[in-house]
Amino acid sequence: MNFSDPFFKQVMDISNQVKIKDKFGLMDHSSITIAGMGGSGVSGRIFSSLYGKEPVNVVDGYDLPDFVDKNTFFIAESYSGNTEETLSVVEKARERGITIHSVTSGGKLAGMSDEVIRIPVGLQPRESLGYLLMPLLNTFQTDEVNDSNLGSAISSAFSMSDEIGSLANEIVESDRIPYILSWEPFASLSYRFKTQFNENSKMFAISHSLSEQNHNELVPMALNRKMKERFFYLCVEGDMNSRNARRMDMVESISGVNFHRIRAKGNTRLEKLIYLIHYIDILTVQVGILGNYDPEDVRVLENLKKDLSKH
Amino acid sequence: MNFSDPFFKQVMDISNQVKIKDKFGLMDHSSITIAGMGGSGVSGRIFSSLYGKEPVNVVDGYDLPDFVDKNTFFIAESYSGNTEETLSVVEKARERGITIHSVTSGGKLAGMSDEVIRIPVGLQPRESLGYLLMPLLNTFQTDEVNDSNLGSAISSAFSMSDEIGSLANEIVESDRIPYILSWEPFASLSYRFKTQFNENSKMFAISHSLSEQNHNELVPMALNRKMKERFFYLCVEGDMNSRNARRMDMVESISGVNFHRIRAKGNTRLEKLIYLIHYIDILTVQVGILGNYDPEDVRVLENLKKDLSKH
Repeated sequence: MNFSDPFFKQVMDISNQVKIKDKFGLMDHSSITIAGMGGSGVSGRIFSSLYGKEPVNVVDGYDLPDFVDKNTFFIAESYSGNTEETLSVVEKARERGITIHSVTSGGKLAGMSDEVIRIPVGLQPRESLGYLLMPLLNTFQTDEVNDSNLGSAISSAFSMSDEIGSLANEIVESDRIPYILSWEPFASLSYRFKTQFNENSKMFAISHSLSEQNHNELVPMALNRKMKERFFYLCVEGDMNSRNARRMDMVESISGVNFHRIRAKGNTRLEKLIYLIHYIDILTVQVGILGNYDPEDVRVLENLKKDLSKH
Repeated sequence: MNFSDPFFKQVMDISNQVKIKDKFGLMDHSSITIAGMGGSGVSGRIFSSLYGKEPVNVVDGYDLPDFVDKNTFFIAESYSGNTEETLSVVEKARERGITIHSVTSGGKLAGMSDEVIRIPVGLQPRESLGYLLMPLLNTFQTDEVNDSNLGSAISSAFSMSDEIGSLANEIVESDRIPYILSWEPFASLSYRFKTQFNENSKMFAISHSLSEQNHNELVPMALNRKMKERFFYLCVEGDMNSRNARRMDMVESISGVNFHRIRAKGNTRLEKLIYLIHYIDILTVQVGILGNYDPEDVRVLENLKKDLSKH
């Protein structure tokens, strides 16, 4: 695998991003609301699967639920600071007198916020996951962060390049659509995996989580032989001791499908998560390169934003 | 379309189910947690997209988040009353001294609950959506229910049988995988649609919501010509006045994909929702029949449950 691709360099840079110590000042609150879209919003999804001390409400749209008020710890995540939906939510939060915390490289969002954590410009949102995620972990969950050796989790993912390269080849040669399963507390990875296939590899993908999948999508997987052969099955194994690991074996035996298993490395939940995120990033970038796509090219999304701003 | 199929009869029966007046006694609470899987859990997802007065946390797994305590209004939804994951969550809630509300036809769950709303036996979970959803709406959101004419929303969906039949034919003849988009407050329908394709039609499906889709899956839709032709594009139009309706037009122009648009009928949000749910149910049953599958046959899920109970 040729790690000189500019996108790989950005991904490797996340090992520096996870060292940032920035955090928001804590204030009394009854729940947390995190607003953000796409590559910026995924940090909220990951945080909410790691954090269980209070209700965490992830908003990925234009509207702010009625219950969000001055007692809510409100954080807006927008790499550019100009995401239309996120600015709409922030505007509504301001009208309700809510304190606005934000993580952003600038844009209109910075000027609308009471407290801003500024992150460097010049990246794409999905290349800045460390910058976007760490302020959440630093503010609310200091224990796990201190225990972790996040930089080495990232190096550890890069050391798997032979395995990842051969999996990337297999996926491209299969000409199939990726189908991804994972489970709590790593279920948000299944969604990150799907969106990285979308953006880096320019491929569609299905993501689902266990055990919910056993209540619906197991049906076509077991019964629709023709359609089942259109997918390349991947499983992200974060927690191997859970009841869902047992279900995974049964999914394979009932459906006759073999999943390619991607197994976590690391000691803490956070180390495993960071390892898996990077494994997924490297894999989807490599699949894009093998498919003759530019992993960095998401002009189509940028053009949409420009067109929308005219109307 | 031949409505004598037993599954259609069950679906039509939901027009009676929505008349039930059962509700739980209200108690002081700071948030609502609804636990449930698959066809039973979808009622919680739909409720949470309609209800914004307090945080609603939908649990679809074995674990109960740490913040759920005696101040939480806790409801378990399990048609059979024997869903392994839901019983695990209820057990954890009992250990924390939380009052257990449940909607169920019986099983172990009924015996573990402080307050039970019992619903008739002999259906499948996805055939009993009215029974599962109405207690939530009746308890927390009486206004919208009183304004609605839900039975006629259902008849109205059945009156579309010619249109639905021809769409079902198109889907089956295309031999493509359904791809479904919707947006708030109807975004939960996209997931219901996917799972009904899974169970009724024995087909895989991708479900996504706007505007989040514009931040990731629009990329392969615009750039991967070969893969894009593998999908049959459906859009559920609940709210035609939102910014997302505008985004829908732009998705089509950027990607060159034509979506088949399913438009809501009805006056209130709840009427539209019930109309769309039935449109989706009738369509996915008909697609199953045309594909020579038995829409009612989900033995594969039942076998999995039996196997799991042995280990």
